[in-house]
Parts: sequence; C-alpha cells; structure tokens
Amino acid sequence: MTATRVPTGTDLTDPTDLTDLAALVARREPGRPLEGAFYTSPAVFEADVAGVLSRTWLFVATEAELREPGDFLTVEVGSYSVMLVRDDDEVVRAFHNVCRHRGARILAERAGSVGNLVCGYHRWTYATDGALLHAGDQPPGFDKGCFGLRSVHLRLVAGLVFVCLADEPPTDFDELVATVTPYLLPHQLHRTKVAAQVDLVEEANWKLVMENNRECYHCEGGHPELVRTFFPTYGYAADAIPARLRPAHERYLRAEAELEQACEERGMPYRAVEELDDRVSAYRVQREALDGAGESYTLDGRSASRRLLGDLDSPRLGRLSLHTQPNAWFHFLADHAVTFSVLPLAAGRTLVRTTWLVHEDAEEGVDYDVADLTHVWRETNEQDSVFCERAQLGVSSPGYLPGPYSASEYQVDAFTTWYLDRVEEHLAR
Amino acid sequence: MTATRVPTGTDLTDPTDLTDLAALVARREPGRPLEGAFYTSPAVFEADVAGVLSRTWLFVATEAELREPGDFLTVEVGSYSVMLVRDDDEVVRAFHNVCRHRGARILAERAGSVGNLVCGYHRWTYATDGALLHAGDQPPGFDKGCFGLRSVHLRLVAGLVFVCLADEPPTDFDELVATVTPYLLPHQLHRTKVAAQVDLVEEANWKLVMENNRECYHCEGGHPELVRTFFPTYGYAADAIPARLRPAHERYLRAEAELEQACEERGMPYRAVEELDDRVSAYRVQREALDGAGESYTLDGRSASRRLLGDLDSPRLGRLSLHTQPNAWFHFLADHAVTFSVLPLAAGRTLVRTTWLVHEDAEEGVDYDVADLTHVWRETNEQDSVFCERAQLGVSSPGYLPGPYSASEYQVDAFTTWYLDRVEEHLAR
Amino acid sequence: MTATRVPTGTDLTDPTDLTDLAALVARREPGRPLEGAFYTSPAVFEADVAGVLSRTWLFVATEAELREPGDFLTVEVGSYSVMLVRDDDEVVRAFHNVCRHRGARILAERAGSVGNLVCGYHRWTYATDGALLHAGDQPPGFDKGCFGLRSVHLRLVAGLVFVCLADEPPTDFDELVATVTPYLLPHQLHRTKVAAQVDLVEEANWKLVMENNRECYHCEGGHPELVRTFFPTYGYAADAIPARLRPAHERYLRAEAELEQACEERGMPYRAVEELDDRVSAYRVQREALDGAGESYTLDGRSASRRLLGDLDSPRLGRLSLHTQPNAWFHFLADHAVTFSVLPLAAGRTLVRTTWLVHEDAEEGVDYDVADLTHVWRETNEQDSVFCERAQLGVSSPGYLPGPYSASEYQVDAFTTWYLDRVEEHLAR
Repeated sequence: MTATRVPTGTDLTDPTDLTDLAALVARREPGRPLEGAFYTSPAVFEADVAGVLSRTWLFVATEAELREPGDFLTVEVGSYSVMLVRDDDEVVRAFHNVCRHRGARILAERAGSVGNLVCGYHRWTYATDGALLHAGDQPPGFDKGCFGLRSVHLRLVAGLVFVCLADEPPTDFDELVATVTPYLLPHQLHRTKVAAQVDLVEEANWKLVMENNRECYHCEGGHPELVRTFFPTYGYAADAIPARLRPAHERYLRAEAELEQACEERGMPYRAVEELDDRVSAYRVQREALDGAGESYTLDGRSASRRLLGDLDSPRLGRLSLHTQPNAWFHFLADHAVTFSVLPLAAGRTLVRTTWLVHEDAEEGVDYDVADLTHVWRETNEQDSVFCERAQLGVSSPGYLPGPYSASEYQVDAFTTWYLDRVEEHLAR
Repeated sequence: MTATRVPTGTDLTDPTDLTDLAALVARREPGRPLEGAFYTSPAVFEADVAGVLSRTWLFVATEAELREPGDFLTVEVGSYSVMLVRDDDEVVRAFHNVCRHRGARILAERAGSVGNLVCGYHRWTYATDGALLHAGDQPPGFDKGCFGLRSVHLRLVAGLVFVCLADEPPTDFDELVATVTPYLLPHQLHRTKVAAQVDLVEEANWKLVMENNRECYHCEGGHPELVRTFFPTYGYAADAIPARLRPAHERYLRAEAELEQACEERGMPYRAVEELDDRVSAYRVQREALDGAGESYTLDGRSASRRLLGDLDSPRLGRLSLHTQPNAWFHFLADHAVTFSVLPLAAGRTLVRTTWLVHEDAEEGVDYDVADLTHVWRETNEQDSVFCERAQLGVSSPGYLPGPYSASEYQVDAFTTWYLDRVEEHLAR
Repeated sequence: MTATRVPTGTDLTDPTDLTDLAALVARREPGRPLEGAFYTSPAVFEADVAGVLSRTWLFVATEAELREPGDFLTVEVGSYSVMLVRDDDEVVRAFHNVCRHRGARILAERAGSVGNLVCGYHRWTYATDGALLHAGDQPPGFDKGCFGLRSVHLRLVAGLVFVCLADEPPTDFDELVATVTPYLLPHQLHRTKVAAQVDLVEEANWKLVMENNRECYHCEGGHPELVRTFFPTYGYAADAIPARLRPAHERYLRAEAELEQACEERGMPYRAVEELDDRVSAYRVQREALDGAGESYTLDGRSASRRLLGDLDSPRLGRLSLHTQPNAWFHFLADHAVTFSVLPLAAGRTLVRTTWLVHEDAEEGVDYDVADLTHVWRETNEQDSVFCERAQLGVSSPGYLPGPYSASEYQVDAFTTWYLDRVEEHLAR
C-alpha cells in the first residue's frame, strides 16, 4: 500500500494589486530572478497581458500556414483571440475573433479555409478584409461600414507573422525588421510548407518559459539530444569555459571559422546583433556553427531534409538563431526552419507552439521523415517543460528567494530587465 | 502531426469590485449588450447572486416532481442549496439544505423520498415541516423550537414551483400569478407526471443563456428542428418581415386566426401580456400558433402524446409560452409541457434543466415515446449551448465591443434592462 | 431519462480581506462553529497558512519513514514544499524544497533516497546538511556559504517528526515534548517500520477535517467499524450518558479500571493531560481503554500484529491517544501505531495522510496482514471524508448559520478557540 501523489502548486491565493506590483518592481535586485508573485499572481498576469503582451509585437505564426486566399488561423493570447486570414488580394490580415453584433467567437477552429467569415450565431457575415457584408433584420439607417471586424496590427517579416494588439504598436519594430531581414532572406520562408506543428501546454508562467529559453546553462545536463549539435558552451565567456567543455570549445572555434568563411563567400550576414533589453522591439540575431556534422538539428548533425531551403547551395550553414522579446525564438537551418511561439494562457499555464518548415517542394517520406525532422526539438521541448514546471512549483513557495544568475545566464537577465521596463511603462500610463 | 487544441476562455483574472460594477452599469449604452465583465467577472457573479438571483422569484421545479408526501428535490443556485419537500399535509415547502447544528448539507441526492429529514453527520432530525424533532446530547435548557430548518419562500403557480431566497420577496409576484394562472389552468399541470428531465451544463454565464432564449434571430440558421414548428418570424415586426420569410409569415397569420378562434370558442386566454422590464416579477405570456400540423414540438408538428393534458378536447391549441425573469421559460402544448429552469453555478457555468411533462395517465410506449417527445428541444438545447459557449468565449476577449441589437432582439434588450435595474437596486441598498 | 448530477460548492467568489477577517473573528459567538467564510475564502486560507500553519509546529512524518542516511520525504503545506532528509550523521533535517539559484523545486518525488540533493535544472548540488557543494559557471568571488539550502525547524518527538516554518518557532513546544514523551516511550517508535500509508484528499477545508476529528458525537451513527472498539461515550460527561449508551459506559468503567492497574504495574503514565486551547503548542494526551478484546483497532479488538511494539509484555494496553494543534492526531496501541497528518492544500481541499507503524521486525503475512491492520481506520477515514465534504458544501451556502455545539463537542470548541487566538495574534502582527 503506497501513498498517492497529490498535485500541488495550484490554488494559490493572490494578494497582488497594481500598488503591490510597483513595490515588487522596485524591490527587484539586479542580477537576480524575479520574486515569486511575478510568476504566480493572476493580477500580475493580467498586468502582463495589458501592459506587456498586448503592447509589443508577438510572433504568432508563419506565412506558410496561410498559403492560399481564405486560409485562416486563430491564435489565443490570454483571453484575446485573433484571426489571421489571407485575403483575396493575397494580403494576410488579422482581426479580433469577436463578432461585432453580440460578441460571439466567430472562428472556433484552430485553422482552416473560408470564403467569408461568418459568425455562426446570427449569421453576420464579413469579407476576408473585415468588411461587414451582411447582417439580417437591421433598420434602414444601419451603417454596415461601422461594424466591420476590429483589425489587429500585423507585420510580415520575411515569412514570419507578427501581430500587435495595441492601438499604437511600438514603432521601433521597423529597425528590427530592417536588421533581421537580410539574415532571413536566404531561407526564403515564403517558399516553405509546414512539415509539423506541436502545441505543448506547460504548467508554468510564460516568463519562466522565456527565461528557460534564454540560457543554455541547463543544456549540458538537461538536453542530451540537443547538445549533439548545439554547443553547450553557449553563453559562456571565452575566458570562462570550464575545463570539461574546452574540447567542445575548440570544435566550436574551428566550426565558426569555417562557417564565417562560407557566409562571407555567399554574402550572408552572420555576426551577432544583440538588442535584448534597451528597446521595446528587442531581439538578438546571429548565425552560428553547429557541432557534429554541422548541418541541422539531428542526432548526428546531418540534414533532416534533402531539399534545402530557398536556393541554398550547401547544407552546412549552421543555425541562424533569432530571439524576439517577449515571446519567440527561431532557428533557421539550411534544410529546415523551426519556430517557437510562446502564447500565455494563464498565470501558471503557457502554450508553446513549435512549427517545423521545409521547402515547399520537399516530399514527406522521400526528402524528409517527420519523426527524424522533429526528434531533437520534441525531446528538448519536453525536457524544458519539466524544467519550467519544476521552476513554477518552486517559485510558488514562500520559501523561495531569488538567487544569483550565472554569467552564462546574461540573456535571462536581459529578458527580465526588458520585462520590468515594460511593466514600469505600464504602471506609468 | 497536427496541433493540439487548447481550451481557452478560462482562468480570467477579475479586477471588478462593486465600485467598478457601478461604473459598468453607468457606462452601458442603451440598445446594446453588456460589457464583457458582466459575463466573466466572479465579483459580478457574486453580485448577481446577492442582488438579483436571491432577490427575485426563481422557477426551480414542477409540482409533478413532488407528487407524494415525503418526496423531495434539491436545487442549487450559486452556492445556495435548497430542499423542496412535500409535507405530510400535502403542502410543498422549501428549506435551506443546511443543518442547524454545524452546517452540513442534509440531502445529498437530487431527488428522492424521505420520512424525516435527517442530517447524516450527527443525526439531527427534522420533520418535513422543518421542525427539529431530535438532537442528541443537548443540555436541559436546549430549545428545539429555535433550531428548525430555515425556510425559503415558495409559491406554487398552477403546478410550477417558484422560490425566493430573500427574507422579503418581491410583492408584485401576486400580479404575475393572477395574470398567468388563467392561461395555465387548462393544462392542469397538477395532473401531469415527468416524462423526461435533462440537465445541461453550459460553459457560459447565466445571462448569456437567458439572452439567447429571448430572441429567435438565431433560430432560422441555428435550429433546423425547432423551426419546423416554431415560426422563425418570431420577434419580427409585421412590417419588417424579410422577403424569404413572407411565406412563413402568411402561414403564421392563417394559423393565428384559426388559433384565436379555437381559444375564443373555449374561453381560453391567448393574447400577449408583456411586462418584461418594468417590474421586479417580470414576465411575458401568450398563446401562439405553431407551424406544420400545429399541434406540438415535433418534426411534423403532430402531437407527441396521444393523451392530451387536462380535459383539452383538441390537439391543435398551439403553444402557450411563458417567460419569467430572471431564469425561466416554458411552453405548454395540448399534449405536453416543457419547462426550462436556468440555475447559475459560477460566472462562466450554468445549469439548464429541461423537464417534459405529460398527462399523469399517459403510458410510456403506448401514448408517447420519450425520444420523440424530447427530440426537438434536446437538439435545440444542444445547439443553444454551442451558441452560448461561443458567446462566452467571445465576450471574454478585451477585443469585444457590444454591438447593436436587431429589432427582433427587443426582448434581449428588455432582459438586459431588467437585469441592470436589479443591479442598481442592489448597489443602492 | 434522468437528470445528471452537477458538482457544486466550487467556484465561490471571495470578498474577504484582512479587515473582513478581523470582523469575522470579532463576530464569532462562543460555543458555536465559525462562519462560512472561514472555510471557503481563499483569503482566509492564505491567512491560515501565513498566520497559523506556518507559525506553529506541524506533525508531518514519522522517523520510521527516514530510516537510513539519504532517505528523504517531501511534504507540502499550502504552496510550501519541505524536504525531510536523514543526514549522513543520522540527524533528520528539514529544508525548503527550493533551489537557491532560480527557485526550481529540487525533489519532485514524495519519498526516496539520495546521496546529495541535486537540483535537476542547473545541477546545483547540496549536501544532505544543506550546504551548497557545487554550482557551475560562477565568478571567482562566489561564496557557496551564502547559498546553502534554507533550513526549516524540525523536532523529533519520540519518533514523530514535527516542523515549523516560522523563523522563530513557538518555544512552548518544549513543554509539550516533556509531557508527552513519557507516554510515547514504551512504544519505541524509532524501532518501527511503515506497514502502510494512505493519502486521502478531502474536498473540505482543513479546519472542518480537524473539527471532525475532535468529537465522537458522530461516531455512534457514522463509524460502525470504529465503535466496535472505540467507546462511543467519548466526550460525554459521566452524568450525561444517554440511556442507550449506559451498557457501553459500564464496560468502559470496568475496562478503564483494568487498564489503570496495568499501567500502574508497569509505571506507564495514562492520565489525561489536556492543554488544547490555552497555549500555542496545544495538545491532549491520555491512555484509555478500548472496547471488545481491548487490544487494538480491529473488528473484534484483538491485536492486528503479533509482534508487539518495543518491549511491551501485554497486548491489552488500550489506546494512547495524542491530539496536537493544529494538524494531527495519533493512536498508539500495544501492537501498532497509527498517525494522522492533516496537510492543507487549498481553502476547500485537504490531504489527510494516515500511516500505520508496526515493529521493525514484524513480518508482513506472518505477523500482520495489511488489510486487517488498516481496515478500521481506512473505513473510518472514508466515512469522515464524506462528513467533511458535506460540511464543506453546507457551510458554503449563504443559508448557513452556526448552531450550538453539544457538550461532547467541547474539544471542537477548544480547537476553534485555539485557532481564533492564532488568527488574532496574526492580525496583531
């Protein structure tokens, strides 16, 4: 006869209001993680949605998911629901997934294809450009022009779909676009298709999910599949490489030299641009070498798809890695791309959507095998999910005290600093 | 490999207090639905229970469910639990389902039959009139007369059971009773039995459930079974019938003329009395014609029970429809009656209890078939449940803006107005 | 076709803050149970954890669960998680189950054995005395001495493990220890092993679980297995025994006289010491006779384990019963011991952990049968769980009014009084 496990870490009460939030922000010690309430309080989560997530550009999808006119996706951010739809003029648009009549959710499916956008409740019918086409039983003076769908700002960045829920989105996104586009172009994401997509719901606050991504201090012990190709020296200063990682560091230096030469020959940008905490539309982009065969995220480092992206002429172009605040990271390889979108659901629950893209002409079973293509990141995501859920449980305890970041966690610190700047802006509004 | 759907619309945080509620009420635009917080906020739900649902007369059961002395029902409204019991003197009484000792719930079952009402915890025993009969281990001076069950106000209206949780119920209920009783009497509900009862839990606020019932603007597209007999012109002004509904309207006019004559011949009242928003005990009653064979809610409009209710001499008496604020609607037909009781469980969860009554002498399998009898409204309820849940999801989004009611939704507007009047009274107390 | 039951009593909203709590405390009528908000409000639960449960000594485990160096247990109290571990020097220690780096939960398992305590996230490694042994990638000046595990106060009391989460635990625990240790010593719990352990999650507030334990007013009707040996006259004043219980009372008096003689002969203390409400570390201890064969909690009262505890020379030594505020009760018999630890999870959810201990040399299947050993209290716990859940549902209703305690519920009153004293101290801080 043995004891039954009991789920814990739930049902926490919440004393936090905005006054408390200001105190929490003021109390933060530089170089240390946030206090527990940032991760557990529904009131902080509400402030996160209102002040951070709805005020910044969020990565929510890839253009490859919306290939034909009428194709749509729905995406949830907190209690928001957004429809993305490719209009008949090929433009991808975003709207609130809310009928202008009595507020019913219009599209219930995650993805599909439509002619018009029809609310199933009272048959109000909208065009894919958002215009109200039909509403029954209205008085003569009813102006359909006043009741089009409410649009959401949308930007396409070399095949990546970003939205911003604010009325006035941050304007510095243009600089992000200008900087990262040349890095992305060679992969020609508009000529890709979705090979696989996995939604993982993690019982953890969205910031823990992001913080986990922003360091590889946990990779060496925690991600056996990933570190077959991802150098576990990531984030370490060159003069702080532990002895056991020196051989890997030597391999890294050689692979980097080779990669830089390949990029120079092809005119492909590769140097790191890191603007993670001093602007609203913050990001980091860099092309870096991979370990092993150096081609892709597989166990031996060889390509997972025989059909390379775009017009690339070599499989050995490392990983172009992009981080965007507040909710995404990406890896673009010669043979495929993998994108990660973090979609907060509640204070302690987060959806991580991972999408694998291959060349639109690649044939499943011929050019690539889905299980092989997705193996490393499926395993890595599952491992990260366990880490994040353990962190959520731990920081929920009143016994938690934020400890020091290690040097290789400097990007976690950058994320935290960026986040607190956004909260302060929100509190000042 | 495909994406996993994630349930959303839950875990919303709640910034609403009574100050906010007053602001929400003040901000409401006439002719438009309520803002989202009215449907999602636990604080508003608490105010709904304290200020609206516990201050007005609620329809909770039919007398047919309590046929013999000792028969009982339990009904939950929010966190209230009420016992309805037919006393030995045949009177139906209502009590809080809470022991006067340490507060244990006395009856755990939904329905049954008892001699006395015995709390299973410490065996405190009450008579069916609420008197405390026995409590062990009490001191000599213990006065059993002080610890009888706390009663709840109850009114029988021609076989329908209404309760009011307030100490002082609205007095204008008498006028409702006086008006609607003559309409109900021919159906002789006290001589009916329950043929079927279905509880449906909808993930939607109770007001969305009520609002959905108060219009048929969604029927034409949403209720294919119902509109075989229920004229989809319901709610439309005679001069605003859309062209496609003109044939139905012509049939309606003919059927109405025939029905009016039948009622006049039998001395049965049929004209609409509509008092939906200018009094606390608000209601609407009218006998109207049905489409098809005009007899009952079946696919062809023919009777579902061969044994007519009471002493009715014709199956073709249309539908006597009754709406009562805040939580019920009813249809009384020649061959059966169907009642709907809306029992709020939480801000985003509502129980809809549907009860089909047939003549007490009707034999199942001979005079009626339960599947046939219940088909139309089971389908209709399920369809409405989807509508209400989509509305709940949509109005939970910060992207929701209340849009205009159509003309045929005037009873939704009346419900909303009535509800806000009750909230204002509550805030003024 | 029948109605579907709907779970209720959940999703209650919570208007309680500390001001309300002070009003609730002030409003309490002596001799009556607490008002409903004490049992349903998340804010009160938070105050219970912060002001009562984390300020007093909690019984959480038995030493028999930590027999070897490296053996560990984890225990949750609200959102706290505590690790208990037997250090290499045989000392049992307690720590917050939270990494000093970024707060991850270190041990996810309920029990096991370890060499060091390793956080699985970034491999920070602690000795079983809490010292930080290893943290990778730290700057030269990093002082490991500053980042040992945060300890939790722990006391062993004759084989029972108590912890206190406060920085400064109540000092009057020493007197409890001094008083109860002589009662416990003959059972030699350090020479026992766990025969069985059962976790039961009850959908009820922890105080209802405690209050249920503090009286046997409900035993006569509610615990048919228990009252085979537990005299149902428990708690009754000698001059208030109901007529039907007089025969049992006569047996009790005879058995008590015999037990007292046996104790006197062996120099074993047995008289009641009752300090239930006038001190922080409050308790009650007494050795009392059992009905039936008088040996153990079985259906016939005979021993369930042939190997008696310690060096006891007779199976007929009744039950040594210990109650400790706020969260435990115990019965020590000649042949086994059974301990009960109440671990609050949320306002309306509580874990009750029951542990049966037998002599370390007793052989399962030879000296004892687990099903027989545990039968009476497994049944009794399940019955109590139903009582507590019914009480939770009942006191959640606004229709609940606290009624009078009977005379035999005086220990419930003592618990309530003790609890309110702690809340008042908390509000005064």
